[in-house]
Amino acid sequence: MTGIDPSSWSCPAPIGRRSTVVMGHGGGGRLSAELVAEVFLPAFANPGLDQLADSAVMPFAGGRLAMSTDSYVVRPLFFPGGNIGDLAVNGTVNDLAMSGARPLYLSAAFVLEEGLDIGTLGLIAGSMGAAAQAAGAQLITGDTKVVDQGRGDGVYITTAGVGLVPDGVEVSPSGARPGDVVIVSGTIGSHGVAILSVREGLEFGTVVETDSAPLNGLVDAMLAVAPAGVHALRDPTRGGLAATVNEIAGASAVGVVLEERSIPVSPEVAAACGFLGLDPLEVANEGRLVAFVAPEVADDVLAVMRDLAVASGAAVVGRVVADHPGVVVARTGIGGTRIVDVPLGEQLPRIC
Amino acid sequence: MTGIDPSSWSCPAPIGRRSTVVMGHGGGGRLSAELVAEVFLPAFANPGLDQLADSAVMPFAGGRLAMSTDSYVVRPLFFPGGNIGDLAVNGTVNDLAMSGARPLYLSAAFVLEEGLDIGTLGLIAGSMGAAAQAAGAQLITGDTKVVDQGRGDGVYITTAGVGLVPDGVEVSPSGARPGDVVIVSGTIGSHGVAILSVREGLEFGTVVETDSAPLNGLVDAMLAVAPAGVHALRDPTRGGLAATVNEIAGASAVGVVLEERSIPVSPEVAAACGFLGLDPLEVANEGRLVAFVAPEVADDVLAVMRDLAVASGAAVVGRVVADHPGVVVARTGIGGTRIVDVPLGEQLPRIC
Repeated sequence: MTGIDPSSWSCPAPIGRRSTVVMGHGGGGRLSAELVAEVFLPAFANPGLDQLADSAVMPFAGGRLAMSTDSYVVRPLFFPGGNIGDLAVNGTVNDLAMSGARPLYLSAAFVLEEGLDIGTLGLIAGSMGAAAQAAGAQLITGDTKVVDQGRGDGVYITTAGVGLVPDGVEVSPSGARPGDVVIVSGTIGSHGVAILSVREGLEFGTVVETDSAPLNGLVDAMLAVAPAGVHALRDPTRGGLAATVNEIAGASAVGVVLEERSIPVSPEVAAACGFLGLDPLEVANEGRLVAFVAPEVADDVLAVMRDLAVASGAAVVGRVVADHPGVVVARTGIGGTRIVDVPLGEQLPRIC
Repeated sequence: MTGIDPSSWSCPAPIGRRSTVVMGHGGGGRLSAELVAEVFLPAFANPGLDQLADSAVMPFAGGRLAMSTDSYVVRPLFFPGGNIGDLAVNGTVNDLAMSGARPLYLSAAFVLEEGLDIGTLGLIAGSMGAAAQAAGAQLITGDTKVVDQGRGDGVYITTAGVGLVPDGVEVSPSGARPGDVVIVSGTIGSHGVAILSVREGLEFGTVVETDSAPLNGLVDAMLAVAPAGVHALRDPTRGGLAATVNEIAGASAVGVVLEERSIPVSPEVAAACGFLGLDPLEVANEGRLVAFVAPEVADDVLAVMRDLAVASGAAVVGRVVADHPGVVVARTGIGGTRIVDVPLGEQLPRIC
C-alpha cells in the first residue's frame, strides 16, 4: 500500500478540517505530521522544536542539571482557572524550581484517545505554549500516540523538563535544620477543591479556582535575597501540605511543629472541605510551595514573597525542631496537638 | 482523616503483599511511596534517583544538550524478545543517539490502570533498569499516576532523556547531501511483525522477535570512524523505512533512490508481510537505524557497523540524488521504479 495516490482517498479532507483524533494520528505517517504542523508547532513555536529531529539539540552551560517528569491524568480536562495543559507545564516547571533550578527546556508527550475533539486539543496546546512562555521555558520536543476509545480519557500529557541549578544554590529535601521557619506561599487546597467542584457538580457559593501557577520566578526572588538561607523547598501537590511536610521531615531527620491557626485557607475552601469531610492539609495544590528557611533570613524571605502576586498570601506556619525526628505535629486552635500523618492514598483521585 | 492509626486499617497488608494496583497508588501518599520503594527503586537504583527530590540534580558538562521524549502504548505489554519497558528505554536512548548525542539521563512516567498486577509492573521495571544499564544511561527521576479501570490499558510509559552532543558532531535530518550513501543497520520489519504475531495470534513457522535494542554504541562507533562523514541518522520506527527516508529527503531537500533488492528483509518477515498485505518498508523497527553517509567513508562506516552484533546485517540500500528533491523512489527487482510515499497513518496501531 505504498505510493498512495491522493486522488484515490475516500476522505481527502486535510487535517485542518478533520475534527476528531483518529488512530492514524498516532501512526508516525502523514496524519501524525499534519497534527504536529497544525496543532503543536503553532502553539509551542521555538527554534528547538522547529528542528523536528528525533531529539532537540540546545545549548546548555556546564554545571548541575536538574531533571523532572510528571504525567497528568486530571479529570475533567478543563476546570476553573486552568486546564490539563497549563497544569502539565506548571507542574514540571515547579518541580525543577523546587530544586533551585532555572527551568530551560520542556518536552511534552500526548496519549490521545481516539475521538478526541481536535479543537479541544488545540486549546490545551495553546495553554501549554502560554504557560511555558510565562515561565520562560521552551517546549522543544514532543510525541503523540493514539489509543482506542475506552483505553484513555481524552488526553493524558507527560511533561519532562531540564533546568540549570546556579552555582552556590543548595536546596534539598534533606536540607531542613532545627530552628528553620516553615513558610507556605499562600492559601492551600484551592486546586483540589476546584477540580472536585466541577467533577461532582458541587457549588460552594463562590467559584473556587485552581492555584496552578509557575513558581520559578518566586524561587528566584527568594534565592536572590537568601542564597544560602533557603534550605528546602517543595510544592505540596498530591497528598497536600501533610504529605509534603512529612517528606521533608523524614528526609531531613527533623521534627516539624505546625501552627494550625496560621495555615492560610480561604473561607470557600474551608467550607468545601468541611462539607466534604476533607482535611485541607491533605488537598492538592499546584501553585504553592513550602519553604524551610533559616530563622535569620525568614523575615526578608517572607517580604520578597509577599511582594509577588503569586505569593501575596505567604505566611509562617511552623518551625523545625530537633525533637521527634520524622514526625510532624500540629498545634490546634484549642491548645492541643495532633500528629499530621502522610495520607494513605488520595482523597481525590486524578487531581493532576 | 489525618492521623491515620495503622491499627484501624481494614487491610493492613504492606504493598509487597498487595497484588494489584489501586487508585491510592497514584495519590502521592503512603501507598505511592511504597510502590516507589518496592518496585521502582530496586529496579532503577542509582544516585540520582535515590535523591527522591522533585527533580534529580546531576552533573552536566557544558555544550550541546539533546532532549527527547516518547510515550509507549504498545499492545500487548509483552511480546517476543521484549516488553514495553525495554522498548521505552531503547526508544528514547535511540532518539538521542540519532542526534549524535551520548545518552546520560532518563526519566520514566507511568500511567497505570487500576487492577494492574504489581508483579507485571515489577517485571517491566526490571527490564527498564537492565535496558538503561545496557545503554550506559541512568533512570534518575519518575512519576506514577493511576487511572480507573477502562481508562487505560495496563500501563503506558513515557520516557524522556537528555544527552550530550560531543563537540564536532553534526548529525541532523537536514544534513543529507547528493552523493551520500544510504545504509540500514539490518533487516527491517521485525518489531512490527513480532507485535502483530502475538496480538493477532498468527504464526509464521518461526517466532519473529522484536529488533528492539539500544543503538548508541553503534552510533559511537560510526562517529569514531567518520566524525564528519555521518550526515544524517534516524531510526525507522512508526511509519517504517518509508516514512523515515522521506523525512530526511524532505528536511534535506534531496532525492533518494532506494534499491529494493538490497533492502534486507528476513524470510519470516517477508512471508508475514506477504500474507498480511503489508509493505515491509512501512513496518516499524525499534533497533534499526538509517544512515546517510559521505561516499568516501561509506565502506569504513559499513565495516565498523558489521563488526557489532546489533548491525551485523548492515547494508547499503540506496543513494542520495540532486534530482526530485523531497521524493523517494525505489528501483524494483524487475527494473522499474516506484514512488515510496509517506504512509498516511499506521498499518499497525499501538506498535510502540
